[in-house]
Amino acid sequence: MSGKRTSITSASNAKIKQVIQLQKKRRERENTGLFPAEGIRLFQEIPPDRLDQVFVSESFLCREDAEELLSRWDEQETFVVKDSVFESMCDTKTPQGILALVKRQERTLEEILSISETPFFMMAENLQDPGNLGTILRTGEGAGITALILSKGTVDIYSPKVIRSTMGSLFRVPFLYVEDMAETAELLQEKGIQVYAAHLEGSVPYDEPDYRKPAALLVGNEGNGLTDRTAEACSRRIRIPMEGQVESLNAAMSAGILMYEVHRQRN
Amino acid sequence: MSGKRTSITSASNAKIKQVIQLQKKRRERENTGLFPAEGIRLFQEIPPDRLDQVFVSESFLCREDAEELLSRWDEQETFVVKDSVFESMCDTKTPQGILALVKRQERTLEEILSISETPFFMMAENLQDPGNLGTILRTGEGAGITALILSKGTVDIYSPKVIRSTMGSLFRVPFLYVEDMAETAELLQEKGIQVYAAHLEGSVPYDEPDYRKPAALLVGNEGNGLTDRTAEACSRRIRIPMEGQVESLNAAMSAGILMYEVHRQRN
Repeated sequence: MSGKRTSITSASNAKIKQVIQLQKKRRERENTGLFPAEGIRLFQEIPPDRLDQVFVSESFLCREDAEELLSRWDEQETFVVKDSVFESMCDTKTPQGILALVKRQERTLEEILSISETPFFMMAENLQDPGNLGTILRTGEGAGITALILSKGTVDIYSPKVIRSTMGSLFRVPFLYVEDMAETAELLQEKGIQVYAAHLEGSVPYDEPDYRKPAALLVGNEGNGLTDRTAEACSRRIRIPMEGQVESLNAAMSAGILMYEVHRQRN
Repeated sequence: MSGKRTSITSASNAKIKQVIQLQKKRRERENTGLFPAEGIRLFQEIPPDRLDQVFVSESFLCREDAEELLSRWDEQETFVVKDSVFESMCDTKTPQGILALVKRQERTLEEILSISETPFFMMAENLQDPGNLGTILRTGEGAGITALILSKGTVDIYSPKVIRSTMGSLFRVPFLYVEDMAETAELLQEKGIQVYAAHLEGSVPYDEPDYRKPAALLVGNEGNGLTDRTAEACSRRIRIPMEGQVESLNAAMSAGILMYEVHRQRN
């Protein structure tokens, strides 16, 4: 049995307007505690208790598997939106006909510190490219990170582009934003977690440390790297050696190479 | 002394039209043997003997360093283009006022086989994303690859987006396109170069082989991976282990992790 279906045909409907605001504005996502997630694959990954509202296009209901897909949303009210209106509230160019509003879920530092006795954290300071953040989260899940720690100056992890590029890892990898990255690095080190900062002038090749112990990796902004203050707060600066005339690697690539070195050592 | 300056004020000038065609069409780049490269940084990286034509905007000449930048182009004719026309022939949104037409330079298999006695090749089959190809070339230079081998179904390495994301590696890392990737893999193996194909069903963890011997890594298309025919032609299939529910990594990320494992072992 499917739940209630409510039809929306006008782009000036308040719910449609809210979705559009949530797509566009970080502040709106912060104020409401909600974010939009588009597409069938992503919809299937959303933990049921975090689903807040579900919108489908009229054409979506013509799919053979529409009822099956919606069955996990069961007894709840589903908004059926006229195709042209549905398109207007999507960030993707060719929407798949389903969009959910999802409850945000950040963790506290205490929570992520209690997950593992030998934690493996990935940290990023002031990353600006949504694709890079999404790739780090997805690669991080693959490399087995315990959690992802982001500086408050980092691009919003709930922005549509990040969500798409995480491919569901967003719902599986714990993460949090911190006010002060340097302080967080110091706090982790006080708790016995070595923080390894990726730095072009790092003195230690990245494959030298023993990452089987509690460890955190830290990468900085795409253009400027880490802030001096944060780099100085870290006990060790590591570098990825580069041949030829390459001055730096892409930020997500650096993070991925480092995370998989930790994974390699731990397995 | 700077060379001849010729002014272009009309968007219907034949030279401007040609640049626009070269920006847009792979076939035009193939037929002429030229490709456009935009921006100051990239201009400085172009080997002098490969420069074919240079275009600057009128405002560019107001830069204090304009003459110095153009000095390497010395006695040649430079086309000075009206700003609005210059913008129309650029692929970037905020052009830096300089665009060069550069002579293509691909290598033959014989040439790249003669570079090193213990070669380290990166191979990619049917990659479609320009950003991925650019990232692989740039990371590959960093990891010290001998050359990059691409299947003819791979996105054009001379397309504007790829050129931008390679950040100059295009001019430093030898590469070639091959007609038949499976045959190329077989040929490399006959020459004693082990070809390791990244495959989700690979039986060998990627960090197990001894890459200090002559080696080639091979990755496939973003969505579909390697073609069966090519995968079967490779002597060994390797896999990157993945935790959580990650089914695959981004193609450029996979290539980067593999290339840096080779680099790690060789250093």
